[in-house]
Formats: sequence, structure tokens, C-alpha cells
Amino acid sequence: MDAPKVSSTKVANAEAGDTKTPRTERGRRTLRKLLDVAAIEFGEKGFHEASVSSITRRAGVALGTFYTYFDTKDALFRALVNDMSDNVKSSARSALDDDMNALETERAALHAFLEFARDHKEIYRIIDEAEFVDPASYRAHYEGIAQRIEMRLKSGAEAGEFRQDLGEVEAWALMGMNVFIGLRYAVWGDAKSDLEDVAARANRLLSEGIAT
Amino acid sequence: MDAPKVSSTKVANAEAGDTKTPRTERGRRTLRKLLDVAAIEFGEKGFHEASVSSITRRAGVALGTFYTYFDTKDALFRALVNDMSDNVKSSARSALDDDMNALETERAALHAFLEFARDHKEIYRIIDEAEFVDPASYRAHYEGIAQRIEMRLKSGAEAGEFRQDLGEVEAWALMGMNVFIGLRYAVWGDAKSDLEDVAARANRLLSEGIAT
Repeated sequence: MDAPKVSSTKVANAEAGDTKTPRTERGRRTLRKLLDVAAIEFGEKGFHEASVSSITRRAGVALGTFYTYFDTKDALFRALVNDMSDNVKSSARSALDDDMNALETERAALHAFLEFARDHKEIYRIIDEAEFVDPASYRAHYEGIAQRIEMRLKSGAEAGEFRQDLGEVEAWALMGMNVFIGLRYAVWGDAKSDLEDVAARANRLLSEGIAT
Repeated sequence: MDAPKVSSTKVANAEAGDTKTPRTERGRRTLRKLLDVAAIEFGEKGFHEASVSSITRRAGVALGTFYTYFDTKDALFRALVNDMSDNVKSSARSALDDDMNALETERAALHAFLEFARDHKEIYRIIDEAEFVDPASYRAHYEGIAQRIEMRLKSGAEAGEFRQDLGEVEAWALMGMNVFIGLRYAVWGDAKSDLEDVAARANRLLSEGIAT
């Protein structure tokens, strides 16, 4: 799967808080470029070693241009974590289809996430480093995903496909499964890892458990 | 649950690699003290802000004493990650009983881990920071846990309690469930989080899945 296309609306979302919103299409493209390059720079070097001057050099923009969008390296990192959260969300959504039942939805969402993580391995390092650099964004990232999973579990229960008593515990359990399967097979796995099969096995665990 | 008692054998294990093994009981106690104080220091300040001089001050030992055990702050951090891996392992093991069936074993292991993490919240921050400070230990920590879970799944299958086709994917899924439930309820939860109930819900997901 290709990276989900990122619209200018999404770029605007990514900026929540401390990014200065660009007014022109050209400005939005520059902001997008800065976020994409920042993902590579932070992914390779980590937050502390990454530098604004290296990011602007890689993006081919002047140092002054950077500061029309972000006040600090911290502000860029925060915007990047929000942007990645948003991209994880839309990569899962874009794989879903109204015809899918609740279980198929979970399988497709996991498979899309695994493909996304394989194509953007840096996402783990960046989200994980947020625990130290920007704890509020780290927590918001996982709480947001858990809330979306919990809503899917509830609608699966309303449709009569899932147990009626599912809630926050099961949502966090499911998120943890997906995150660690992604770490093992999408980030640490080799190119031959069969992500479709991995998602199907996780889905079977979800559907029927492991007991005989 | 109290912290598992840490024997001098375990201290010796924690040192794998680059700790100098103490020859006397007094030396082993000093090493244990340094590891305990390091957990607090690294947990509070993170690796980069933590300092050897602050650790020795907190432990009430001379700076020179530190260097009879560790060459560097990095070596101490590595020893601490190994020690924590070991403590997670023994906290789960000490909760298990030969009479338990395979499912009860998983519930008890998770419950013991949740209690351990509530009493040692710093463990998440330290293991997570190892991803950046000492990636090999980070990976070894999770691969070791996944291998132990996979062995338990296989013996549950041999006993006829678990499905025959369980393997690495299910082991990583189960580990991820446990880690994220621990983050939500043991580390971020309040003192009133009912960890026994949380472990029971996760165990039901494991036993029968979420589908109707």
C-alpha cells in the first residue's frame, strides 16, 4: 500500500496548536515538505541530534522559511507526532469498506497499519521518542487510537457481531496487539514477512481466542 | 504484591556483559543498591539528565566505588535493563502455580505483571528509553518475553487446552496486549484501578475472543 495521500486539510490538522497556518497552496506544500523531511531526520538521528538547519537543507528551503512555520524544533516535533497520528488514522480508514462486517474491519485496519508501518518504519521511533520529548502528544496518540477502537467494538456489539460487554480494556488490548505485531513484522520483519497472513492470524485470535 | 526478592544470583545475572562481579556479600549488596537507585534516577530524569554522581550520592557510596562495578553510565543502564527484564520474568513466575491450567497461568502472569508495574512505574520509561540508549537490550527484552510466552502457548496446546496452531504471531499479540494494558491501568491508572478485574477481562478475550 502506498502512503495515504495527505490533503491540505490534513496538513492543517497536523498543525493544531503551534504551527502557523500557511495561507497559500505553495505554503502548504512547503509545510508538507518540512514535515516529510522531519520524519526522516528525527527517524534517523533522534530528536536531540536532529537539527533545524539539517532539516531545512534537506527540504531545500531557507532557514528563515522554517521559522515562518514553526517557532522551535520542539514545535516541529509536536506537529510531526500529530501528523503521524493523523496518517495512521487515515491509512486504517482508507482500507475500510462499508460492506465489511466488524471482524473484517479489524483485520483490514490492522493489515493497512502493518503496510503503512513497513513503508514508514520511522513512525515507531518518532512516536516512542515522544514519550520523552513530548509526553502529552504521546499519551494523546494512544488515547485517541484506543477511543476509536472502542467505538468500533461498540458498533460491532450493536450489530450483534461482538460481545455486548466490550469496553476500554479490550480496546487497549487490541491496540497493544496491533502495535507489537507491527513492531515485530513491519519494523523488525524482513521484506518477505507476509503481513496479510499475520493480520489474519491476529484476527482469528480476536474472533475466537486461543482456547480449544 | 511486593517486589520480587532479588537474590544475589539474580544480581549476578543482571551483570551479564559489562558489570564487574562482586566477590563478597557486601559487594553484592552495594551493587543491588546501585541498581535500585539507578532505577529511580533514570526513571525520574531519563538517561541523558541522570548522572553517576547523583546516583552514588543517592546510594550513599563514594564515586570511586561506582567504578569498581561499572565503567560508564551506559554500562549501568545496560545492567539495569537486564535486571528489570529479569525482575519482570520472576514477578510473573512467582505468581504461577503447578496446579494452574494454561489459561489461569496467563491470567496470573498478567495480574502479577500489572501489580509489579504499578509498584515500579519507572520500568516503562526505562525499557522504552532503551530503544534509544541501548537498542540491542530493548530488542532482547521483548524477544525474550515473546519466546517465553510462545513456549507457554505451545505447552497449553500440548495439554489440549489451547489451539494447536499458535506460534510467534500469537505470542507477540499477547505480549502487546499485556504491555498496553499495563501502560493504561498500572502506569497511567489511579490507585483504584482494579487490576484483578482488568487481568480477568484480558484473559476472557484470550480464551474466547470478542465475537458472539
